[in-house]
Amino acid sequence: MGLFKSKGVVYKPVKDVNLGPDSTEFYRQADVKAPRMTGILVKIFTWFLESPIIGALLLYILKGNNLIYELITNAEFEETPLYVPKHHFEDHKEQEVKCIDSGLTPPEHVQLAIECLPTSSKKARNGAKPSFCRWTIMDYSRAYSSGDITPLMVAERFVAAVDESSKAPLKMGFFINYNVDDILKQAKESTLRYQKGEPISVLDGVPVAIKDEIDCLPYPTTGGTKWLHKERPCVDDACCVKRLRLCGAILVGKTNMHELGAGTSGINPHYGAARNPYDPSKIAGGSSSGSAAVVSAGLCPVALGVDGGGSVRMPAALCGVVGLKPTFGRVPHSGVLPLNWTVGMVGILAGTVEDALIAYAAISGEIPRHQPSNILTKINLPVLPLTKSISDIKLAKYGKWFDDCSDDVRICCSHALSNLQDYYGWKMVDVTIPEIEGMRLAHYLTIGSESSTSLDSHAEKYFKELGWDARAALNFYGAFSSKEYIKAQKMRNRQMQFHMKIFAEADVIVSPTTGVTAYSIQDDALKTGELDYVNGAALVRFSVSGNFLGLPAVTVPVGYNKLGLPIGLQFIGRPWAEATLVHLAFAMQAIRMSEYRKPKIFYDLMGKD
Amino acid sequence: MGLFKSKGVVYKPVKDVNLGPDSTEFYRQADVKAPRMTGILVKIFTWFLESPIIGALLLYILKGNNLIYELITNAEFEETPLYVPKHHFEDHKEQEVKCIDSGLTPPEHVQLAIECLPTSSKKARNGAKPSFCRWTIMDYSRAYSSGDITPLMVAERFVAAVDESSKAPLKMGFFINYNVDDILKQAKESTLRYQKGEPISVLDGVPVAIKDEIDCLPYPTTGGTKWLHKERPCVDDACCVKRLRLCGAILVGKTNMHELGAGTSGINPHYGAARNPYDPSKIAGGSSSGSAAVVSAGLCPVALGVDGGGSVRMPAALCGVVGLKPTFGRVPHSGVLPLNWTVGMVGILAGTVEDALIAYAAISGEIPRHQPSNILTKINLPVLPLTKSISDIKLAKYGKWFDDCSDDVRICCSHALSNLQDYYGWKMVDVTIPEIEGMRLAHYLTIGSESSTSLDSHAEKYFKELGWDARAALNFYGAFSSKEYIKAQKMRNRQMQFHMKIFAEADVIVSPTTGVTAYSIQDDALKTGELDYVNGAALVRFSVSGNFLGLPAVTVPVGYNKLGLPIGLQFIGRPWAEATLVHLAFAMQAIRMSEYRKPKIFYDLMGKD
Repeated sequence: MGLFKSKGVVYKPVKDVNLGPDSTEFYRQADVKAPRMTGILVKIFTWFLESPIIGALLLYILKGNNLIYELITNAEFEETPLYVPKHHFEDHKEQEVKCIDSGLTPPEHVQLAIECLPTSSKKARNGAKPSFCRWTIMDYSRAYSSGDITPLMVAERFVAAVDESSKAPLKMGFFINYNVDDILKQAKESTLRYQKGEPISVLDGVPVAIKDEIDCLPYPTTGGTKWLHKERPCVDDACCVKRLRLCGAILVGKTNMHELGAGTSGINPHYGAARNPYDPSKIAGGSSSGSAAVVSAGLCPVALGVDGGGSVRMPAALCGVVGLKPTFGRVPHSGVLPLNWTVGMVGILAGTVEDALIAYAAISGEIPRHQPSNILTKINLPVLPLTKSISDIKLAKYGKWFDDCSDDVRICCSHALSNLQDYYGWKMVDVTIPEIEGMRLAHYLTIGSESSTSLDSHAEKYFKELGWDARAALNFYGAFSSKEYIKAQKMRNRQMQFHMKIFAEADVIVSPTTGVTAYSIQDDALKTGELDYVNGAALVRFSVSGNFLGLPAVTVPVGYNKLGLPIGLQFIGRPWAEATLVHLAFAMQAIRMSEYRKPKIFYDLMGKD
Repeated sequence: MGLFKSKGVVYKPVKDVNLGPDSTEFYRQADVKAPRMTGILVKIFTWFLESPIIGALLLYILKGNNLIYELITNAEFEETPLYVPKHHFEDHKEQEVKCIDSGLTPPEHVQLAIECLPTSSKKARNGAKPSFCRWTIMDYSRAYSSGDITPLMVAERFVAAVDESSKAPLKMGFFINYNVDDILKQAKESTLRYQKGEPISVLDGVPVAIKDEIDCLPYPTTGGTKWLHKERPCVDDACCVKRLRLCGAILVGKTNMHELGAGTSGINPHYGAARNPYDPSKIAGGSSSGSAAVVSAGLCPVALGVDGGGSVRMPAALCGVVGLKPTFGRVPHSGVLPLNWTVGMVGILAGTVEDALIAYAAISGEIPRHQPSNILTKINLPVLPLTKSISDIKLAKYGKWFDDCSDDVRICCSHALSNLQDYYGWKMVDVTIPEIEGMRLAHYLTIGSESSTSLDSHAEKYFKELGWDARAALNFYGAFSSKEYIKAQKMRNRQMQFHMKIFAEADVIVSPTTGVTAYSIQDDALKTGELDYVNGAALVRFSVSGNFLGLPAVTVPVGYNKLGLPIGLQFIGRPWAEATLVHLAFAMQAIRMSEYRKPKIFYDLMGKD
């Protein structure tokens, strides 16, 4: 009981905390104290971490320096712990939605989503063509149906493109695995269906990539490692993959990821860094790095990722695509690597908001259980676009937090947001979200503890096969006590109450998606990975509540910095209110359609450019 | 990662585990390796535990010797963690029940419970009087209504009896606090209501005692300590107390308990040992020791306790009374000391099954929330007695576990059970409950981690004011990692699956309530408490699933050993199926009515004996 004891914060009762703009709550900027390291330094640091006495001391110092003792371990909470961010289903009476019952098949879901699309998306493009636009699911579907092109032709171009991008000089690191025979086989079957005039859905023949954290036959699920698939063979499609397959999508392979999801750069020592299509010398972000990059590069209109700490939204923002993380529990988690149990969620990366909506419709809905449950008995799909004259959305913004990012991000996001407001006349509610840094630490402690527990049984056998950065991360992850874990869950309850109070006043919380844009990949990081907790914290700054509180969130591209690197704006919504988020993302997308830029690395699989 | 690493069990998939009588699953007897200590030894041991290096080493050895590394820490589970044993409400179509809707007041609940009682309980006693019977709520109610006696008279006798029992030579240690003025004030008000012919319910004027872990005005809530009430002032009645007060019950004070619930003997170094009315040289059991003892001694027909690890059922069995622990979430937990969050539940100690039912009806029902929730929309009350010819109950018994107790307990419980079966012709289903010792450790680790986290903020200030045994316990409690906590929750999921499979074949699981009868209080334990993890494990052996899995359970007295010490039989039920348990307990009680013995220490508040 207290060999080391440092003073802890005494948190005020939630009811006494002012969440208004005039709040005296202190905004604590993340003050991450951990050295940025690559190459040999990472190795030396990890050796130290793993040595018995010095390791314990090092962890103790790092935890102290990063305020874990102050904000979590020794802090006093009056809340009870909230272990799982599972929300009761609640109908928020969202505006302009189509309510669909469960019990329908994925292709039926997709068809209903199509009926929600605006007329412009359904029609072939003509007239004022945007500066640049990726081909959408509807583009593929139309082209296949008209016979302009076949799924087999697209698959062949896809294979060629991936082949080229994998090799020098590009070495884009998009995929961990793709099987040419399997891709062509699926494409042939789809082509046959179109020839018979019997496509299953608009997704029929559309290439979709899957993060290598999600089971998808015939591939092993590596989780970005060299060994996890040996310990846990993939024996079936994950539920979400099964649903896409039922819609006729061509599953084109397993995308690269940060090893074990234990980092945000997407630099994988075994499978190469997934590079950013807008600038291949920069990171794609992570951990769903490959999924974001392939969508950005035009290889798929849609890919699946997993978001346990912004892992879908961050790479989406960095690669200039849309990223949607649904409410905790909205998409069945079966068949996803159990790297954690209370923060991770399958998410969608897509070139456009419409495509994100279609994929969302295809994979959403809990697996029916025998227990009576009113959760997910229905899904609201947004009827696009929002009617400007009748929509009435309130946007909550916490200024100090919103502005805690690099200048380029701040300027771009503020500009996009004021454009949106000007156009729709929506009201901005200034709020204060207290204790954000405490929440970040509590989330880190939670995902870390769960991840380290999940991997524990393989640790002895395979620890040495991990990359050095993942190995260091797992040492941090395993350093927490049950008390620290439980206190983190108290923080979860506390933040849930804060956020629900904010959602009583506003429909969404708006923020940048990341605190920085894609940064450079250092050469010596390629083999060892890098330890960059400062950039890591800046990337993850705006993501945490989506995971820790199970809230739905979406990122939509809103511009580029001077170097041409993409920037994303994030909307965080009430539980189960994905429709509102899609509405907003679509509105945002619509008012800046003409500004999109083409990535440096881009493949046009329909060959029309 | 792994300075110390000992081999862990690889648990089989649940579907591959045979739960039948022919299972090859090994029954692992608890092999607790910790010295039994009292007096100065406890102090020395605790000093060692608290010294930095030796303490860590000692904890490491104790954890290893007690198989925590093997069965939990390094074990491999394929289950996801289950953090909270909250069950979806399910209607099990229980036999012969009255289904009552929520939204009624506590007195209305009580009235409906009265309508469920058998005619014999409603009428005044005459004819074949049982050998010994405590006065019941109905006895009080009838006597008050007829004017034979008044609540004030009972209150005065109560005060005199408590006064006598508190002092030498008895020193029964029943209460931590009781306020004569407050008791008499309540009694006068109740007397007035009867005089006006307007009693609120049958509980009007009935003395009810509350464990000092539950808020009850005007008393502080000490939790058995000398300081906790200073840190956490009691400002309101707990919800369950409020409901009893609404029924007109006289709240007669706060009963003694094992300090912080951190033990099972009920020996409290600050407030004395709560002694067993059947033999004051023996323990009452704990942690709700005083609540069991006052009911046993005739001071109240009903008392409330809290059961986080058998803490209601164990002392009930040892003191020869009925103990009912409802399903997790059935009774609101607000106003109960937050010593843990996922295992503790308010429970009822009562002289008879009928009285347990009345109290259960009074306090049950979730606090309505704004969220839609189908939990606890209704409560089933059993219509007593079960009809012998139509009832059809299946009892599950795990022979090796059932028999893992002292001879006196085994013989008595087996005998009672076969009597019950003979009388009703019910079917026994032989089952195997695997990994019981693993579940006990997982539960210990869970309640320990939560308790230590709960008390953490006070630890520095008040640790030295704790008794030595509680202090040692908190040192164990604080010794777990987040990985160990999470793995314990995996065991919770696993055991939940085992138990639900058993409940698919049987209505209840039957077992002894405790592995041993009340043991002697050693003189030098009175000041330091005692560390007796061997007897502790034997006491708690049959209690764990009720807490860890949130299952309802009831203990009913079924006999005495040669020394005249009571023995209890336990029924563990499906979630939300308390009615079946009460039915069984009543059936058990009915067939042995003539065998009850009077405790050595007994007070007859109605003055009729």
